[in-house]
Amino acid sequence: MNSPLLPAGFTASGTTCGIKESGNPDLALFVSESAAAAAGVFATNRVLGAPVIVSGERVRSGTARAVIINSGNANACTGQQGLDDARQMTTDVAAGLDCNAEDVLVCSTGIIGVTLPMDVITAGIPAAVDALQSSSDAYKAAAAAMMTTDTFAKQVAVDVTLSTGTVRISGAAKGAAMIAPNMATMLAVVMTDAALRPDQCDEMLRYSVDRTFNCISVDGHMSTSDTVLLLANGASDSAPATEDDDRRLRESVQQVCEKLATDIIRDAEGAEHFVIVDVTGFETREAAFAIAKEISESALVKTAVAGNDPNWGRITSAAGYAGVDFDTSFLSLKINHTNVFKAGRPVKYDESALSRQMNDNREVRLLLELSGGPASGSESVRFWTSDLTQEYVRLNSEYTT
Amino acid sequence: MNSPLLPAGFTASGTTCGIKESGNPDLALFVSESAAAAAGVFATNRVLGAPVIVSGERVRSGTARAVIINSGNANACTGQQGLDDARQMTTDVAAGLDCNAEDVLVCSTGIIGVTLPMDVITAGIPAAVDALQSSSDAYKAAAAAMMTTDTFAKQVAVDVTLSTGTVRISGAAKGAAMIAPNMATMLAVVMTDAALRPDQCDEMLRYSVDRTFNCISVDGHMSTSDTVLLLANGASDSAPATEDDDRRLRESVQQVCEKLATDIIRDAEGAEHFVIVDVTGFETREAAFAIAKEISESALVKTAVAGNDPNWGRITSAAGYAGVDFDTSFLSLKINHTNVFKAGRPVKYDESALSRQMNDNREVRLLLELSGGPASGSESVRFWTSDLTQEYVRLNSEYTT
Repeated sequence: MNSPLLPAGFTASGTTCGIKESGNPDLALFVSESAAAAAGVFATNRVLGAPVIVSGERVRSGTARAVIINSGNANACTGQQGLDDARQMTTDVAAGLDCNAEDVLVCSTGIIGVTLPMDVITAGIPAAVDALQSSSDAYKAAAAAMMTTDTFAKQVAVDVTLSTGTVRISGAAKGAAMIAPNMATMLAVVMTDAALRPDQCDEMLRYSVDRTFNCISVDGHMSTSDTVLLLANGASDSAPATEDDDRRLRESVQQVCEKLATDIIRDAEGAEHFVIVDVTGFETREAAFAIAKEISESALVKTAVAGNDPNWGRITSAAGYAGVDFDTSFLSLKINHTNVFKAGRPVKYDESALSRQMNDNREVRLLLELSGGPASGSESVRFWTSDLTQEYVRLNSEYTT
Repeated sequence: MNSPLLPAGFTASGTTCGIKESGNPDLALFVSESAAAAAGVFATNRVLGAPVIVSGERVRSGTARAVIINSGNANACTGQQGLDDARQMTTDVAAGLDCNAEDVLVCSTGIIGVTLPMDVITAGIPAAVDALQSSSDAYKAAAAAMMTTDTFAKQVAVDVTLSTGTVRISGAAKGAAMIAPNMATMLAVVMTDAALRPDQCDEMLRYSVDRTFNCISVDGHMSTSDTVLLLANGASDSAPATEDDDRRLRESVQQVCEKLATDIIRDAEGAEHFVIVDVTGFETREAAFAIAKEISESALVKTAVAGNDPNWGRITSAAGYAGVDFDTSFLSLKINHTNVFKAGRPVKYDESALSRQMNDNREVRLLLELSGGPASGSESVRFWTSDLTQEYVRLNSEYTT
């Protein structure tokens, strides 16, 4: 991975208009110099933020010029006023870029139930447009302006060589920390100078999100505003021309999404362990996914990891209630490459050595494998999660409303 | 509710055979003097304890004489030896009672992955049979012998007047504390001297469990050995004869199950608040259930309650991702009878007063109501849960394997 640079034909800015009491940057703007093919994946929560509704409608056209993001206020549970405000933000950006408001997407993250301070936002957007640059610094400033309770900005760029030339894929994200009320929103913007049709964007984005952002769990709580966007402006003049190009491009989009998604887990509040959960040997991806999700969301598994406790019983029993009809006698589990459960029975191993290893190495790997019987096959799923520590509870139970 | 007494024709004992290092009572025995109609509801986990498999098979006959329960060892993940040991326990009890082993049900709770110390159990069962009495003390001793990490014994009895006479329904349970590895097992034995057919037992038990034991959540983790049994021996000579009798009996079985289930929540490790979650105004019970479950299992809702934080956003967004297709503009939420969210919008209320009330009153009531639009109707579901405190995490992350 390179140092984070924008793809050709993209500019960005991160500025401060005054939404946050802290005075930290609160407006991020990403712009493509020409109309880009666009796709989006949004929260499916029934309680949605206004920007998710507006951007969800607009992305259906398949093209976009810009994404405006404010942090500090999620513009959710704000009724008709919220919808009007979200549209006004895009109108303000369109005025600065001399494009249609319909070509501007919008995201908001922060407190919910409070209407946006539109005076400062409308006043701040021209400055955000003026600050647009293609530099690494501008890209970095934009990623920083997306942050709420994140402790570090999340961004990445990869270059991919296709048969028709080299393209770049860059992404910026903000994470899922939940310290303040409903700041859980996960936002990501992925940009590429590859030449893609909207349907190709949509397919690649969904494929990648299914294997990355949908495979992370901090607390199992879905926000009202989760959004992942992909813009492809073709400024590289390189389009995928072969099946191999398609595969490389898809894998690279997935790689960018995986880096951003796992950075969100690494930034999980109060977490002490980064946990990789591999579930393998199942007939369907859905079955492996269901089991990986139950393990990753189990408070008992997550507290065991926090305590450096190789508690296989909590992991296998979480697998057992995922609704998959497997035979335990074909089930095995490794923790950090140590066999702890094999073919349905506990294995003798050095518990204190494994616990020390978990304590010393803050990355923990769980590998659950089915080797035969009903529901077995060749599908695998990887999840990423964090442990559940006393510090997590302290942060989340502080009076915040 | 009366002081806990057994129904007519039942005896019980609680004794110590030596399974637990602590030397605490570890064998509970419940016996009906005549063959009782029997029904059972068991964990659906794919990883099941041996006693669940054995009792699950036997209860299909529709009759039973006795239930033998050991605490301290769950006899789970113990392979063929575990099945042999579970059957041996029933053989030992049958020898003492002079009945068929097939008429004895068995439950085990405690550590998993370790075979039972059958020498001390086989030696201890005759003493358990000798100790059988119909007294309140014997019933209390039996409930105490079921405990693992429970801090108090859970038992209840109610008398119900039917058109044909008065019957008693008594129940004992152990709870879901998860401090030690996989001691989560929830076990309950409900006994009545009403005259019921096995199919009536089965119907009443499933109806009651669906509304009580299946509506509690400490950590969302399903154990390998959860079991609820109902025995009806007819010793009162009173059978339900009218629809009103059926209703009263069903409601009383539900009342007994509710008392035991909520006692398990009240005994949840490290919990500081008892939370009642009412979800009302939905078209189907399934929809209300799904939403109540998401709210009750949300780590963010549970930490907010721990912090006396009336954080409506976490509650409404948990409702939003339960997979029910409702319209937020018809959704309202009360916390302890205070409107905090009404018709899709936050309500102005005295936050600090409500927070103080949550702090002073350790019982918190959440009422989520849908008043129109898609998915609305007249179905309600009540869930019970506990808050998520730093103490919970401390207890669960201590090295226990």
